[in-house]
Amino acid sequence: MVLPAESTALADRLQEVLGDRVSINPSVREQHGRDEGYHAAQSPDVVVFPQSTEEVSAVVGICAAHRKPIIPFGAGTSLEGQVVASRGGVCIDMSNMRHILYVNSQDLDCRVEAGVTRRQLNDHLRDKGLFFPVDPGADATLGGMASTRASGTNAVRYGTMRENVLGLTVVLADGRIIRTGGRARKSAAGYDLTRLFVGAEGTLGIITELGVRLYGRLEAVSAAVCSFGDLVGAIDTVIETIQMGVPVARIELLDEVQIDAVNRYADLNYPLSPTLFLEFHGTEASVREQAESVGALAAEHGGGDFRWARNEEDRQQLWRARHDAAYACKALRPGCEIWPTDVCVPISRLAECLIETRRDIERSGLTAPIVGHVGDGNFHVVMVLDASDAHEMRRAQAFSDRLTRRALAMDGTCTGEHGVGAGKREYLLAEFGTDTVAVMAAIKRGLDPDDLMNPGKIFLD
Amino acid sequence: MVLPAESTALADRLQEVLGDRVSINPSVREQHGRDEGYHAAQSPDVVVFPQSTEEVSAVVGICAAHRKPIIPFGAGTSLEGQVVASRGGVCIDMSNMRHILYVNSQDLDCRVEAGVTRRQLNDHLRDKGLFFPVDPGADATLGGMASTRASGTNAVRYGTMRENVLGLTVVLADGRIIRTGGRARKSAAGYDLTRLFVGAEGTLGIITELGVRLYGRLEAVSAAVCSFGDLVGAIDTVIETIQMGVPVARIELLDEVQIDAVNRYADLNYPLSPTLFLEFHGTEASVREQAESVGALAAEHGGGDFRWARNEEDRQQLWRARHDAAYACKALRPGCEIWPTDVCVPISRLAECLIETRRDIERSGLTAPIVGHVGDGNFHVVMVLDASDAHEMRRAQAFSDRLTRRALAMDGTCTGEHGVGAGKREYLLAEFGTDTVAVMAAIKRGLDPDDLMNPGKIFLD
Repeated sequence: MVLPAESTALADRLQEVLGDRVSINPSVREQHGRDEGYHAAQSPDVVVFPQSTEEVSAVVGICAAHRKPIIPFGAGTSLEGQVVASRGGVCIDMSNMRHILYVNSQDLDCRVEAGVTRRQLNDHLRDKGLFFPVDPGADATLGGMASTRASGTNAVRYGTMRENVLGLTVVLADGRIIRTGGRARKSAAGYDLTRLFVGAEGTLGIITELGVRLYGRLEAVSAAVCSFGDLVGAIDTVIETIQMGVPVARIELLDEVQIDAVNRYADLNYPLSPTLFLEFHGTEASVREQAESVGALAAEHGGGDFRWARNEEDRQQLWRARHDAAYACKALRPGCEIWPTDVCVPISRLAECLIETRRDIERSGLTAPIVGHVGDGNFHVVMVLDASDAHEMRRAQAFSDRLTRRALAMDGTCTGEHGVGAGKREYLLAEFGTDTVAVMAAIKRGLDPDDLMNPGKIFLD
Repeated sequence: MVLPAESTALADRLQEVLGDRVSINPSVREQHGRDEGYHAAQSPDVVVFPQSTEEVSAVVGICAAHRKPIIPFGAGTSLEGQVVASRGGVCIDMSNMRHILYVNSQDLDCRVEAGVTRRQLNDHLRDKGLFFPVDPGADATLGGMASTRASGTNAVRYGTMRENVLGLTVVLADGRIIRTGGRARKSAAGYDLTRLFVGAEGTLGIITELGVRLYGRLEAVSAAVCSFGDLVGAIDTVIETIQMGVPVARIELLDEVQIDAVNRYADLNYPLSPTLFLEFHGTEASVREQAESVGALAAEHGGGDFRWARNEEDRQQLWRARHDAAYACKALRPGCEIWPTDVCVPISRLAECLIETRRDIERSGLTAPIVGHVGDGNFHVVMVLDASDAHEMRRAQAFSDRLTRRALAMDGTCTGEHGVGAGKREYLLAEFGTDTVAVMAAIKRGLDPDDLMNPGKIFLD
């Protein structure tokens, strides 16, 4: 593969700053041009591996001088094409920025470089009796998680990246380095730049460091699985649990197709029906009480007995089944690809939205389990597709379009946690309308007038 | 008082849209040119009372055409001069926009016009078994609370306006009306414009409607007061309570000077020592357990027995003492003015910050009780001053400056919940530095190029 001369000149210039931490190797570039979603790969011209905020700033300065797009890259686990190099340019791989800068047990916070992954952080915190709750399926980097406003199974109790990022260090499009937020638990000082960069998907600047909230490990944790006669019973249990203020830590739904996939993949034998996976955190007494409350609600709504996982090992096995859901989907049709998508609706509309979606999947002749962070009204449909079957791909596209518009029609959002990326740009417009998206674009122009920061994402060209 | 001809022309034009809901009456204008803080009043040229978002949009359009500043006005209870008409212009009084548009008990949310006050909302919600937790001292409007990113005594458990606003309707500087956010409990769709307008103090647009989160009233609520031998014991109790994850709903500190003020004002007899006011929400069993945990921590740190308020009436009396703190301060020196200020630090630094501040107050010869939302590291100093004593006012200014810089030096913020307004603009710069504030200013320019939206606030001229 031959690179245009200008890319080589750019690589040379980058090498002056980063030495051998600059790559134009075709396989390295290819690896950095795709994520775990369904979007076609597009390689960057160059991949760099900075080791500090100052190096990121230098790289951005060089890119700005060369008018080259800049794409930040964490673990490459995004799902809407966020890392695809739509217009080529320089991919900034953050994997060398993996220092945990400090952990403060008294204030329950820490500061990390953006390339630290959530598992790395939690491994580090374990001995200190602390944890970081945000858990997207993949072992993503904290920088990537902030950029896509990620959440996961714990969000119903602990919030998403929006609630858990205290402050950021960001490199702007002109190379300037700014700090946002701080260490105080709240502040009314000026515009909330932290929340602006969280969820901006690298289009406004590159996050190089993050301060995040931590939580003390709780005295007691208990997990349970409960099967329901139908979807409505499961969702009504969820709604009443939230309404009663039971501080449930996780409340996840797997529909019967997802249960089938999980059973096959992990050799389990859950009944083939809509199933809630639950977890309770607190003191021994509080966990017992929470479980009794939710158990009573479940029984009222046709739920079966709770299957308990009380010790750490059983619990890990239970949640592995949930976390492996995407891989289990893939195993339903060996050799096929997965196309995961997510929407989020007010929980009062969730049952209706799920039932219509299930029917739509069946009418469309698709293989597509549903799994959801239902305490938030958020659910995923994981289509398992034969990418070589053009007819099937068209049906998938049409289904995905109906799914998103259905969620919007029910006062929902086009994405609860995967972000907009390249894949949901037209739905962002459908959700908010031209004027609101124009305000986002005005902010983008104000901070990145040459449109170099991850172009082709969030906004339609 | 004679208005310049251009203001009369402007008023005439506004009357075409709003009829008699336009005032150039001097006392109405004067009333709208000051808040409850210590800033010198400056009257707007005209005050208008719109009844709908469309009317606000029309007013803004007229102001834009006349290049006249626009100052949104809620209940006028801000504390940093947010409503002062620094450059004259049109004050938009939102008090006619007091409709509660809907309440959804299943989704635990509601939508209100910006002029609805927090008490009005909670009165409306009482019969539905719901409540809205954010409670600044005053009966502020929800629009004003969002604009200053207000919080209050419940923030330690329920969060601030940042966490509790789901979406907004905003009138932009050119009169366009946009909607931000939505009804889903989370979203990864595009820039977080909601969080950008929350805390922008009217400098980016005028909030006309808000969707906010609600909470179900809990089975049990219990409140208690506990006196400590010293400040460190009280703060260590707070730190360990938060660390243990006890979901305390309120944990407020009154220092001995504030206790003295409250005792005198409300004819109470609390011991003259640092005192925590606490509230626990949950089930009967959980409230009992929380209280036992905190009680044990308090005892370890030199706290006395809890004085309980278990029924609604006793509880209201207890919290009235806390909520009346500012008035109690004023009563310490009849005829004097109060100058309330607030800072927020990481809780590990709180005891140190409070002790140094108490010493500083004494050295400065000021009367200034301290009261704090200490679970968040946030505290208020309420200086009670003879405004006619120039020497005392200078000492107050110097003390206030040292207080803010002390908080910043301890990794804190210049304001936890009062906002920047006119009063803390230089501290915003001190806190974040030139480049970060320049990013805020770039956003401001992008959305309000003529600097008409509440000019003279947040940014130094």
